[in-house]
Amino acid sequence: MKAAIGSVPGLAVVLVGNREDSQAFVNIKLKACNEVGIETSIVQLPQDCTQNRLIDVVSGFNKNPSVHGIIVQLPLPQHLDEERVINFVSPEKDVDGFHPLNMGNLALRGKEPLFIPCAPKACIELLLRYGVEIVGKNAVVIGRSKIAGLSTSLLLQRHHATVCTVHSFTNNPEQITRRADIVVSDVGIPNIVGCDWLMPGAVVVDMGTNSVKDPSSRRGFRITGDVCYEEAVKVVSAITPVPGGVGPVVLSMLLSNILDSAKRAFGFT
Amino acid sequence: MKAAIGSVPGLAVVLVGNREDSQAFVNIKLKACNEVGIETSIVQLPQDCTQNRLIDVVSGFNKNPSVHGIIVQLPLPQHLDEERVINFVSPEKDVDGFHPLNMGNLALRGKEPLFIPCAPKACIELLLRYGVEIVGKNAVVIGRSKIAGLSTSLLLQRHHATVCTVHSFTNNPEQITRRADIVVSDVGIPNIVGCDWLMPGAVVVDMGTNSVKDPSSRRGFRITGDVCYEEAVKVVSAITPVPGGVGPVVLSMLLSNILDSAKRAFGFT
Repeated sequence: MKAAIGSVPGLAVVLVGNREDSQAFVNIKLKACNEVGIETSIVQLPQDCTQNRLIDVVSGFNKNPSVHGIIVQLPLPQHLDEERVINFVSPEKDVDGFHPLNMGNLALRGKEPLFIPCAPKACIELLLRYGVEIVGKNAVVIGRSKIAGLSTSLLLQRHHATVCTVHSFTNNPEQITRRADIVVSDVGIPNIVGCDWLMPGAVVVDMGTNSVKDPSSRRGFRITGDVCYEEAVKVVSAITPVPGGVGPVVLSMLLSNILDSAKRAFGFT
Repeated sequence: MKAAIGSVPGLAVVLVGNREDSQAFVNIKLKACNEVGIETSIVQLPQDCTQNRLIDVVSGFNKNPSVHGIIVQLPLPQHLDEERVINFVSPEKDVDGFHPLNMGNLALRGKEPLFIPCAPKACIELLLRYGVEIVGKNAVVIGRSKIAGLSTSLLLQRHHATVCTVHSFTNNPEQITRRADIVVSDVGIPNIVGCDWLMPGAVVVDMGTNSVKDPSSRRGFRITGDVCYEEAVKVVSAITPVPGGVGPVVLSMLLSNILDSAKRAFGFT
């Protein structure tokens, strides 16, 4: 792209406050962008920044033609209106895919959202790459966050799976999950999905990223998924480990969304 | 409202071509509006009208402050881009709730769409009015049209049901449906749901509106639902008949959407 048209894709990140995990996530994204030649800029705002200041920053990125993707790192401090800020990101630069316009077009068959959120896109990418059939299969998605669970339900349904969404109000979630050919977990509770939740031969995509105390680790904690991997691996036909499973693919999908956005902006095909 | 602020809600309808069923649906809507004091205007365009002409008409209604709801009667003739037209309706006047922005906000928990499509709204209204518990119940929605099935899935999930969507690619739809406490059908195939699809005691909302030949009828046809009512009624705890079940409630929900829109426009609470 650089060689052909002399331009490169650009990502802008807004980070408010000083949460260590958010800082770490942002660094991973920036590093990945830099490695593949995507220009990055980051604005760091103080914890007590006003809603108007944040909207101003996003507004500047919306107008900036060398920015093709905007990430407002979540969660925002409590005093800020997260929904209003996300709605303010231009749908044409919403590489996270969280804008309701993109979410609506994801839900509506026959429409093409400009961006699909990275986590569900990664999930489908993994299933397709590993030759897992989706059409007509029974899929259970545990959890319904917009970042992962909800959008994965919608995307699996676009791929013609029969999707059931299990959540905190569900009675007998293990019984429902045990009927699924494909299980996607986005709960945020370590090891909640045991082997009694899984049909023999099921395919499991574990989107959980949970930090658990581990005195034996240098950092004092380790990252684990929602699925009890050691148990599950004896039962299922395929499973993504945590860490190292879905995570890196999610990052690739972000890069792919930024590239697609830049191509659209430059009319480059 | 008229007494308090001297203004009334207004609905504008655009009807393209001369489909008899569309004309009949529009007449029902206009009649209901007139009965409750909603002003109506209708623009009828010829079958061969251009996309630009249609957009011009919608654009006029978007700008007209005495119009609070716009309905573009579907389906449009094949040469017109239905999606583009729906996207062009102002989300603030989208009383059908089909704009992707409203659909996205329906999907996203914690967000409030300006309008919820009338069919799912009617479904929930019926369930609540008849004291059917939704939270934590297993619901199966058969069909995934944006008008009814998809949006009903999303709305039931907002009400904390555990929702499974069954469609043409689903294997053993009867087996999956038989597990449901609440069954909503939006298939468009007369009598497809027999009593072997239903759990004893289930609650059934039949959104099908199918025309079947009936030589004994004066008109030569009659309207029937997706569910084989005579069979189902012996098994279920509650069921909506067709005609006369969901239909009139859908119409009420349209009136309610128009009224809400006018209240928002006038700042009238």
